[in-house]
This record gives sequence, structure tokens and C-alpha cells, in this order.
Amino acid sequence: MLSDIEISRQSPRLPIAEVARQLGIKAAHLHPHGHYKGKLDLALLHHAPAREPGKLVLVSAITPTPLGEGKTVTTIGLSMGLNHIGQSSIATIRQPSLGPVFGVKGGAAGGGMAQVVPMEEMNLHLTGDFHALSAAHNLASAALDARLFHERKLGDRFSASTGLARLDIDPANILWPRTLDMNDRALRHLTLGQGGPADGVERLDRFVITAASELMAILALARDLKDLRARIGRIQLALDLGGQPVTAEQLEVAGAMTVLLKDALKPTLMQTTEQTPVLVHAGPFANIAHGNSSVIADRMALGLADYVVTEAGFGSDMGLEKFFNIKYRQSGLAPACVVLVATVRGLKANSGLLDIRPGQPLPASLQGEDLPTLKAGCANLAWHIQNARRYGVPVVVAINRFATDSQAELDLLAREALAAGACGVALSRAFTDGGAGAADLAHAVVAACEQPSEIRLLYPDEMSLAAKLATLVECGYGGRGITLSDKARQQLARLSAAGQDHLPVCMAKTPLSLSHDPARKGVPTDFEVPIEEVKLCAGAGFVYALAGPVMTMPGLGSLPAYRHIDIDDEGNVIGLS
Amino acid sequence: MLSDIEISRQSPRLPIAEVARQLGIKAAHLHPHGHYKGKLDLALLHHAPAREPGKLVLVSAITPTPLGEGKTVTTIGLSMGLNHIGQSSIATIRQPSLGPVFGVKGGAAGGGMAQVVPMEEMNLHLTGDFHALSAAHNLASAALDARLFHERKLGDRFSASTGLARLDIDPANILWPRTLDMNDRALRHLTLGQGGPADGVERLDRFVITAASELMAILALARDLKDLRARIGRIQLALDLGGQPVTAEQLEVAGAMTVLLKDALKPTLMQTTEQTPVLVHAGPFANIAHGNSSVIADRMALGLADYVVTEAGFGSDMGLEKFFNIKYRQSGLAPACVVLVATVRGLKANSGLLDIRPGQPLPASLQGEDLPTLKAGCANLAWHIQNARRYGVPVVVAINRFATDSQAELDLLAREALAAGACGVALSRAFTDGGAGAADLAHAVVAACEQPSEIRLLYPDEMSLAAKLATLVECGYGGRGITLSDKARQQLARLSAAGQDHLPVCMAKTPLSLSHDPARKGVPTDFEVPIEEVKLCAGAGFVYALAGPVMTMPGLGSLPAYRHIDIDDEGNVIGLS
Repeated sequence: MLSDIEISRQSPRLPIAEVARQLGIKAAHLHPHGHYKGKLDLALLHHAPAREPGKLVLVSAITPTPLGEGKTVTTIGLSMGLNHIGQSSIATIRQPSLGPVFGVKGGAAGGGMAQVVPMEEMNLHLTGDFHALSAAHNLASAALDARLFHERKLGDRFSASTGLARLDIDPANILWPRTLDMNDRALRHLTLGQGGPADGVERLDRFVITAASELMAILALARDLKDLRARIGRIQLALDLGGQPVTAEQLEVAGAMTVLLKDALKPTLMQTTEQTPVLVHAGPFANIAHGNSSVIADRMALGLADYVVTEAGFGSDMGLEKFFNIKYRQSGLAPACVVLVATVRGLKANSGLLDIRPGQPLPASLQGEDLPTLKAGCANLAWHIQNARRYGVPVVVAINRFATDSQAELDLLAREALAAGACGVALSRAFTDGGAGAADLAHAVVAACEQPSEIRLLYPDEMSLAAKLATLVECGYGGRGITLSDKARQQLARLSAAGQDHLPVCMAKTPLSLSHDPARKGVPTDFEVPIEEVKLCAGAGFVYALAGPVMTMPGLGSLPAYRHIDIDDEGNVIGLS
Repeated sequence: MLSDIEISRQSPRLPIAEVARQLGIKAAHLHPHGHYKGKLDLALLHHAPAREPGKLVLVSAITPTPLGEGKTVTTIGLSMGLNHIGQSSIATIRQPSLGPVFGVKGGAAGGGMAQVVPMEEMNLHLTGDFHALSAAHNLASAALDARLFHERKLGDRFSASTGLARLDIDPANILWPRTLDMNDRALRHLTLGQGGPADGVERLDRFVITAASELMAILALARDLKDLRARIGRIQLALDLGGQPVTAEQLEVAGAMTVLLKDALKPTLMQTTEQTPVLVHAGPFANIAHGNSSVIADRMALGLADYVVTEAGFGSDMGLEKFFNIKYRQSGLAPACVVLVATVRGLKANSGLLDIRPGQPLPASLQGEDLPTLKAGCANLAWHIQNARRYGVPVVVAINRFATDSQAELDLLAREALAAGACGVALSRAFTDGGAGAADLAHAVVAACEQPSEIRLLYPDEMSLAAKLATLVECGYGGRGITLSDKARQQLARLSAAGQDHLPVCMAKTPLSLSHDPARKGVPTDFEVPIEEVKLCAGAGFVYALAGPVMTMPGLGSLPAYRHIDIDDEGNVIGLS
């Protein structure tokens, strides 16, 4: 089989203007970026072609493994499958981060015959949204340090010479890190402002990856441009010397940040290997952020197609939980069905019975039939099915088929899925066969969407933040509750006193286990999640909690992916996967 | 009069596809970015419409003052003026940096009736080239620190476990800073890698603004994609423990950096307030970099129009000197004439007789007629005329007219210009009257381009680097020579031993004086320029020298421009100037 980038390059494609035209979008509402991608104007939110709103399908998965379960492949494949069986469908997915692209994971445009094309444009700058986010984020950082510097330098004369009230920012209480869309561990902890009195105020700082910036969550959750502007104004950048928040509005930088994000707020239209439409927008990771594509992309797509297939990051304990408790809570856009992606290999790996090590040959169990190991791993599948059903929507299991799967294994997996409460189960061969390979899955999804559903969230708004965290661990992960660090306890008390108890919580935790410990596979139960720190994201509208030492700036490995990425003699990109 | 952004918003404009069509560019060779800007395919370098190559006109200026001489206004205005008198003309200018846009200077799209439109798109992200440069630059930084980290962590096992030869990077000899397109003084000096053994190797580092990155110079000087790839491979990122250079090629990151810059290498086509074509590309500052738009944009434009008007940053001692000794030396594209922009106010300010202070009312001399002060200031004009003539091309002086100028002042300025050797002098009213206001200037330029010219450079390739620096100061600035710091002396000796003496030099110095001291106005002569440091830019193809403590990362002032930038109720950008 050809490599992903070869398939992408050879796949037939329509001019993006034609993809838009087929959706009934006027030329004025498409802002092309080259010939094969374009941004959709926000006017479409109000002037979409008249039609019934489509049905939203949320794709989640079992607990991820190093083998790769192919969730994006299945998301793209299902959307192509729906179009294949005569429904209209748009996939709404997140933009890949350059960090993983050059690090280890590679791109996130799907793979094989179920890709977004041109994949190199999707995986590299796309239409510049991540860069705009980094610029807007770092403008606030520069503004904050500049204000700190000028107030200190001018002292009592500050207000007289500028006409501005002092903000008295506390350099020990800066809440806003800097950001880069890069895997760069050396930027995790640093001291800046070290040049002397003319070169800023010396203080500790850190960079997070752009996907972890509150601005990314804001972009993904904003309803429209005005809402974006208001949310940015509410961002708490620091505390002042009296312990009161200093917002982006107070620093007078919220307008300029919004201006930098004006175009990033428009979703990008692309196409699949079968020329069906895809909206790519925002890119919060599901472990360190809320892990879902944008509200605006979903809203637009629901006005343009019968079905909208959207992907929530990692397992159902991560992106799916956050989809319901954070994104749905803010958007009101409910999925009609959940698709859980599972693989025979991934469930075997989730059994906890295998020893899988990077750089070592795969265990025999993964290369041939092994029903007992699969059966053990199906406990993880059952947990995710029940977890998804808890939110009140029907669940379809999509088995992403690999060549090594035996028929007996596939039958066992299907039986276990139905026994655990899935309303449907179907094989997907989208990787090799494109939309035709996902036709069965598409039919199962259409049937599931006809079933009644009634969304139930994990916790009500009026529960305290600490109780929400405990509920999330007990009901959302299957653990025994939380332990709070002293720091987290104080922070929660302060947030409670400041009247922020009504917000939902966004947990930063490992995706590799239902617990906070990546070593605990399958369905761990006997664990308490340590909450190290909590932080108000007043612009995003949630309280962010760190479950243990969670990395918000990844690093490059010793054999990073960038080594193989280059241009060939014709100027084509090679080595991207 | 309306503000610049109001004029920009109200000015009639053509779809960018129509601007391209009028130039004879095929639709396949225009990559639109929205409806009013687009990138030109590099295939145009080889498949431009058949025609005589155009004539290149280089716009420079007197020594800049805080009053603003309107060089970009005159560049855009002249190009519109040439079109107005029936010639075809394209302006090739640099992309503005976000640092000054949000800091103090505002945008760089021209002004009044001589602007590039939409000015907010030009001044903000444009087509993402600066962001691509920052990403490619910081990828090399992350790769460098990651390699340092992994070699240290794995020790003797590094080669066995990765299959790679050790690079033995010396953390005390990292030549590659990090970069952001932001004014952020707190990032001038920092210590990174402070999190502990898992978070990188602790070392000193610094950020430069993207315009100062060697990658920016490379983008501006590259002939084509292959040349870009080769230049990036040659970049020296660090020295190893044995003092030998570590290149981007050795770190295996040059291919991925090139891939990130593949689209940035394509110039962006926009239009003026009179719908004439403009190519915007690259953005090196002329004080801390070589200060000229790209070779590729000039090459493309010369194949598409009778005249190409390009702007060199700051005074003729800065961007113009670098145009000849660096850019022309590499590109072979010679200007047929130089236009020197002067203003009555700017020359008065250059007299050294006035006390102009930020925040204070302007001296009376600048608000009414003052012939003696103007006459004194004309020494600076005469110097720049003679300086430009030294390179062997005819010089036209463009007087950018302000309402406060008296006829006697304009007459004096014109007489002085002709006496100093200008072959022509003309008023420009492009700010208020657009192309019609620059018709006289356009005629003068057409006449000058008919005159014979023979390019002479300041120094031959085979002169030593130290001698080149001394020649630059003596012949290019009018000083007595250079003094070398011990560090610079050692660096020059090392470069000489490494066989790099053949390269031209790129001086980082203040633009506010012909000398290295911004306080010395007019035509200082009795000075020696202190060279603190020199650095090989093997990819850009020059040796960079710092004349005293030159700032490569600006800071935000106490009343920064971003405070007034916002969106209005219709989503329009306001407050940008």
C-alpha cells in the first residue's frame, strides 16, 4: 500500500470553491487559501441554506494504546460512508499541532483511503490559526511583562506620565504562561528578564504548547466574534499585589488579541480522499485541554448537512466526557449518537496482560488470534460503552479492522459490545476501502440516530467545584474520589469565595489509563486522583484541574519525526505521515 | 482627512484574481488567500508572460527622524504614479512585523491615498510568512536543545540506542537564539531548561524578533526552493565541544524547516488604493538585518512590469548600502535609478539645531518657514545623494510634501538636491492625491532610468572581513574606521581561518545617525564604529556585525499602540494606523 502522503497526493480532488458550491455556500462566504482549502465566513451562521439542522455524531474510543486505534480514520471514514449511502455528511475535526507532527505522532489528517487532503496542508500551517493563537497569546504575555516593567521603572510617576491607573501586577502571581506550537521541553521552566534594569523584570515563567492555551479553548467554545471578544476580555492574566485578578480587559489588550484571532475564528473547509467536505477548526488536546473541535464549526456544519461527524480526543473518559460536561453545556448542541472506536489489537493491549515496549518486537498475541487476551481487554470496551451511555445517547461500536484480526476475534468483540449495551456494532474498513468500507457503520449510525436520547450530564452547575471533581473521578473514571494538594485546596476555596462554583471542570490527566496512572490498564477502580492545582479559565468558562504532574509542554524524542521530513526535487513534501 | 484604516476600507478594490489576470498571470499560478490577497507560484519565475524585463527603482531616504519621512508612502505613490503616466509598475515591499504594529510605529502599508489595501490584512498576519519563519526557526531551537538533552541523558549509550553519531553540542556556544514576532524585552536574556533533569539542559538563551532571524534574510535572498533548502542546510546553529560548527543539515532538521517555509517563499500579491499591483515579501529590518524585500519578488515583478519600485529600509547608509553590497551581490539585479525621499521637516530635524522630544510640542521651526535650519539640514541630504551616487546609479530626490512646507523651503531643498548631484528632483503629493500626486516624480524617474549606470560596490569579495568593515565605515558612513572588541577580533580571526573572508558584511547599527551614536545628527565624520561582535550567517551568505549594543528584540513602551486596536460592532478592525 502507498504511504499516506502518496495517497493524499494521488487522490482526485475538487477545487475548494466547488466543494463549497456543492454545499450551497455562496462564493462570497468562502475565503479561499490556495486552491484546496478555504475559510467559511461567520455570516454562514446566520445565512446558511435553508434546511433542517443535521444530526450530530460524536466519535470517541477505548483507552488509547501505542498501537493506534484509528479514531480519526474512522471519523473521516464514517463521514465518507454516510455520503456513500446517500446521506449528506460533514466531518468536523481538530487541526493538528506542529509539536506532534515533528515529534513522534505524525499528522492527524486520518490515514490510508480515509484522509483529509492535501494532508501536508492540513498537518502543517493549514490556514494559520495556531500561529494566530500563539501570537495573540504571546501579545498578552508581552503586554503583561511590559506593564510590570514600566510600573516598576516609573514608580510613583507611572500614572502621571501615562494617564493610566496602576495595575500593581504581582510578579509572583502571573497566571498566564507564554506559548509555542512546538515540542520544546527546555521551555517548561525558565527565568526571563535577566538582562538588567532595561530588560524587564526578572521572574520565573514557562511556555505551554499552543493546544494547551486557554485561548485555544476560547476559540473552540466561542459562539461568534462578539462572544470571542467578551471571553478574551475576561481572561485572568495575573493577580495584583492585593490578590485581585488582572484581566486582559484591564490591561487593554483584549481588543488587539481579538483582532489577531478574527480570521482564526472562521473554520477551514477541506475535503476527504472522496471529495466530501470536512471542517477543520481549533485543536485543544483532550488530555491537557477540552479536546474537541469548535462550536462554530459544528453549528455551521449542522446547517449544511444531514449528519455532522465530530471527533472527541482520546478515550471516552477524556474528550467525550469534556464534550458533554463542557462543550455541550455551553453550546447546547447534543449528539444523536456516540460511536466508540475499538480495535482487536487495542483491546488486547488494554487487557494489561501484554508487555508492549517501544523499540521491541510486538508480543505474539498481537500478531495472531488470541481470544482470552481479547476477552480480558473487552472489559475496557464495556466500561467505555457504559460510560458513553451514561450521558443518555445510543452507542455504536466501530471495529476498525486490521489485517491480523481473525473472524473469531471480530465475532467475540461484536458479542461483547452488544452485551455491554451498544445498540449497534459494525466493522470499518475505511483505511483500505474508503467510504464503501464504512457503509455498514454508516447504516448502524443512521439507525442509532433514530433512537430516542436525552442528555444527562455528570453534575449540575450548582454543585461545588470540589464535589464536581470528586463526581468526575467517581462517575467519569470509576475511581474512589480525589485527594487535594494544599495548593489546590486553597485555590478551590478562593474560587468558591469568588463565586466561581457554577463552572464545569476540565481535568488534565493522562489519557493512557482511566485513572491518573498510565501504568494501570483495563478498568482500574481502586484509585484516588490527586489534584495538584486548579486554575480558573474565566474566558473559556471552566476550572482547569491538574491530576498529578501533567505535562503541558511536550518534548522531542531522541529520534524525532522531523528527521525524515523534506522536499523532493519537484518541491513536494516527503516523509510526513 | 480620514484615518488610514478608513481610507483603506473605503477604497475601491479589485478581486485579487483580477489584479493577477491584468498582469497576465494564469489562475493556476495565483494561490488566493481570501479575496484580496494571494501568493504567486514560484513557477512564475520560469513561466512569466514573455516580455522585456522591467527596470528596478530603489527607494531610499535621508537619515530617518521621529517625524516620519513617508518612504513607504512615496514607494507606493511612485509606483501608482508610474501607472498613472502610462507605464506599468509593481511595488515590491516588505511585510510589516507585528512587534512595531502593536508597539509604537503602527503598520507599514503606506498611508493616506498611497496605501496597500486592505491595510489591516497587510499589517496583521498577511499570508502567514512571519509565523512560518518563527515556527521553522524555533523548530531548529527545539531540535538543538533536544539533541543536547538526549546526548547528555543517554551518555555513552546515545549512539548505540539511536544509531546517530554524537554531535557534542557545546551549551556555552549555541549560536541560534529563539524567535518571536513580538516586542518583548523580557525575552532578551533568559535561562531555560530549569525544571530538573527531565526538563532539558539549563543554559542561557535569548529571543530575537523574527525580522532579525537569519531565516528571514535567507527567505529574502533565496533564488528558489532548492536554493532555500541548501542555504538552510548551511546554517550554523552551534559549535561543538571541539569548536567546530554544527549545522542544520547535521542536526537533520533542514528539510523540515524548508517544508515549513515552502509557501512563505511565494510572494504575496496585493493592490494599492488605486488597484495597481504590489508584491509583499519578507521583512528584514534594515538596522538589525539587511533591510530589503525578497530577490524572488523582485525577479517575478521584473518579469511582469515595465518598472519595479522597491524600498530599502531607513537611510541610504542602511538599507541602500545593504541592497548593493549584499542583495545585488547575490541576485545580480541592478537598479536603474535610486529615489531618495526627503522632507523639509526631516531635514530640519537632521540639522541638529532643534530639540525634538517625545511628548513635547514640536519646535516652531517645524511648524513654519525656517530656511537657515533647512539649509543646515540639507548637508544630510547631500551626503545621502553622494552616498547613493557612489554605487554608480542616477539619483532622483523625491520631496514628500507636507502642508507646513513653504514654497521657498521647497525651492531651497530642490536647489540643494541638484547641487549635490541629484539628476532630478520632484515633489510627491501621493499621500493626499495618490498616483496623480506622484506623476512628476514618475516622469523624473523614467528620465533617470534612461541615464547610463554602472554598479560599483563598496568592496571586492576578496578583501578581508575586517577591511570590509573598516571600508564600510569609512566609505559607507563617512567615519574614521572601526574599533574591534576582543571578542570580535577573535571571531574575525576564526572566520578568516575558516575561509569565510569572501563574504560581504551586514552591519547592525542605529539608523538614526550615520554613525553608531543616535545623538549625532547631520553628517558626523569624526567617529570610529565599535564592533562588539561578529557572527557568520552561512545560510544568508554574509557576516553579521554588531556596532555597539544593538537591540535585536524591541520592547513595548508605556503607552503601546495595541491599547487602541479592537473590533467594532460590525467586526471591522479599528485603531490600526
